[in-house]
Amino acid sequence: MRQMIAAAVQIACSDEVEANLDKLETHVREAARRGAQLVVLQELFESVYFCMDEDEKHKARAKPLAGHPTIARMAALARDTGVVLPISLFERDGTRLFNTLVMIDADGKVLGHYRKSHIPDSPGYSEKLYFADGDTGFRVFETAAGKVGAGVCWDQWFPEAARAMVLMGAEVLVYPTAIGSEPSFPGWDSRDHWQRVMQGHAGANLTPVIAANRVGVERGESCEIAFYGSSFITDHTGAKLAEADRVSDGVITAALDLDAIAEARRSWGVFRDRRTDLYGMLTTPTPERLLADKAA
Amino acid sequence: MRQMIAAAVQIACSDEVEANLDKLETHVREAARRGAQLVVLQELFESVYFCMDEDEKHKARAKPLAGHPTIARMAALARDTGVVLPISLFERDGTRLFNTLVMIDADGKVLGHYRKSHIPDSPGYSEKLYFADGDTGFRVFETAAGKVGAGVCWDQWFPEAARAMVLMGAEVLVYPTAIGSEPSFPGWDSRDHWQRVMQGHAGANLTPVIAANRVGVERGESCEIAFYGSSFITDHTGAKLAEADRVSDGVITAALDLDAIAEARRSWGVFRDRRTDLYGMLTTPTPERLLADKAA
Repeated sequence: MRQMIAAAVQIACSDEVEANLDKLETHVREAARRGAQLVVLQELFESVYFCMDEDEKHKARAKPLAGHPTIARMAALARDTGVVLPISLFERDGTRLFNTLVMIDADGKVLGHYRKSHIPDSPGYSEKLYFADGDTGFRVFETAAGKVGAGVCWDQWFPEAARAMVLMGAEVLVYPTAIGSEPSFPGWDSRDHWQRVMQGHAGANLTPVIAANRVGVERGESCEIAFYGSSFITDHTGAKLAEADRVSDGVITAALDLDAIAEARRSWGVFRDRRTDLYGMLTTPTPERLLADKAA
Repeated sequence: MRQMIAAAVQIACSDEVEANLDKLETHVREAARRGAQLVVLQELFESVYFCMDEDEKHKARAKPLAGHPTIARMAALARDTGVVLPISLFERDGTRLFNTLVMIDADGKVLGHYRKSHIPDSPGYSEKLYFADGDTGFRVFETAAGKVGAGVCWDQWFPEAARAMVLMGAEVLVYPTAIGSEPSFPGWDSRDHWQRVMQGHAGANLTPVIAANRVGVERGESCEIAFYGSSFITDHTGAKLAEADRVSDGVITAALDLDAIAEARRSWGVFRDRRTDLYGMLTTPTPERLLADKAA
C-alpha cells in the first residue's frame, strides 16, 4: 500500500509577500506534523488578487522563475519538511507573462513548471489582461509523494484538462485557486457549483482532487471579492474527505491509498471503454453559439 | 422565457413487456398532468435486466426498429399526452445488436435513434456479449421541448460524451439507466459516485441532466442485482432539483428555464476559454496502464 497524506492550505493574503509566506510556512509545517507528503497552496499567494482591477501597473509584479526568491524560500521549506509543494506565481518570461505553477519536490528540487492553460475573464477576474494562455500543455510531475497532475484555478472547470492529466499518469489532481463572490452578480455564490465540477472530475477519472482556495475579503479599485475558501480533498469517487470553512486560515489533510485507487481506476472499466474514435469534436473550435464574446 | 418541465420515471420491471409498459404509461400520464414536456424512462424497460447473465438465448430479445410494437405504443402515448419520450430498446439490425435509444417527439413522430457508444462489462453487467459499440456517434435531437442530448447508462460516466452533446447544441442531457449493486463487491454502493459524475457533467457544461434508473431486486441465473433507483434531475450547476428514492416506482419533475440557462452557459465563459489546441490526447487510445483488460 502506497499511502499519500495530502493537504491543502488556505489563508487570507495581504500585499506583503514575506508576511504571506510566513503564514503559509506555519501551515505547511503543521501539515507536515500531521504526516502530509503533498501540500497544496492557493493560487498567487504572494499578494492580493490584483486581477480584480485592470491596471497595467500590476504587470510589474511578474518575475522570472530563474532566481525567484519565493521559489528559493519554498524549496528550502519543502526540503526541511519533506513535503512536495506546488506553488503558484506570476511569471515573467521576456515580454510574456504567465500564471505559472512550479512543482517543488520533497527534497527541494524544482521538477518543472506548468503555465495555466485556461485564462478567465469576467468582472473581478480580469486575468486575460495579465496572463497569456499557457504554452506548456498539461503537466504531470513524478514527485516523491506520487504522480501529481497540476491545474491552476480556471483549469479546474474543464473536464478535458482533468482527463488529459489522468491519461498522462496523474494519481491525484491539484488545483490552486482564487475564487469568491462575483462583483457583477451580488449575492451569487458559486461555491457549490465550483466543488461539484471538481468532484465530477474525481469521480469520472477515479482520481482524487485536492483544491486550495484563498479566504478573506479583498478590496480593489473597482470592486471587492469575498474569497470563499472551502478548500477540499476528495476520494476517487468525488466524495469529500476533508473541507475547510469559508473564512478561516487553516490546513486540511486526508489519507489516500494510491495503490487501491489505481486498482479501482483500472477495474471500474471507464478507461477500457472510452470511444476515442468519437471524441474528435472535442478538439475542434467551439461553436459560435456557445461563445460568450460573440454574444456580448 | 422557454420553460421545460422535465420528468424522470423509475419502475421495477418484470419480464412481461405489456405489464411494464402499462406501469410506465401510468407514470407518463401522471408526469404529463404535472406539466412535463419531456419524460425520461429507464434503460431497457421492456424486460428484466438480462445482461446480468451471459446467455446467448437472450439475444432473441432484440427486435428491429422497423415495425417495433413498443415504439408504436409509446409514440401513441407521446402524441396523446404531448410529451417527448426517449425510449431505450434492444435493437437487432441484421446480425448486429445494439443498445438503442429512440427519440419520440411530442407529436408521436420518431426523430431518430442513438446507439449506446460506451458498453460496460463487469460481473452482473455483461453488456459486451449483447451489444456492439454504437455506430451512430453522439446525437442531439431537436424536440418540441428543446434540444435533447441522449446518452444511455454507461455513457453517463464519460465527460467526453456530455461535452460533445453540449457542443452539438444540447440544452439538456438525458440518461436512461440500469445500475445497482455490484455482484462481485457485496455491500459496495456506487449510487453517490454515479450521481456525482453526472452532477459534474451538468456543472462543467452548465447544462441540466435528467437520469432515470430502474428499481427492484432482480435475480438472474448467476447473480442478483438490487437496482437503486435514485433517478434525479439537476440544474445547470449540478445541484439536484428532484430525486426519487432507492426502491419505489414513481415520477419526479423539475422546471428548467432554458433561456436563462443558455445565457448562464455562455456568460460563465468556459466555452469561450476552451483550449482545443491542447485536447488532442483525448482522441488517442488510452494508455495500457489504464486498461482493465490488460490488467486482468
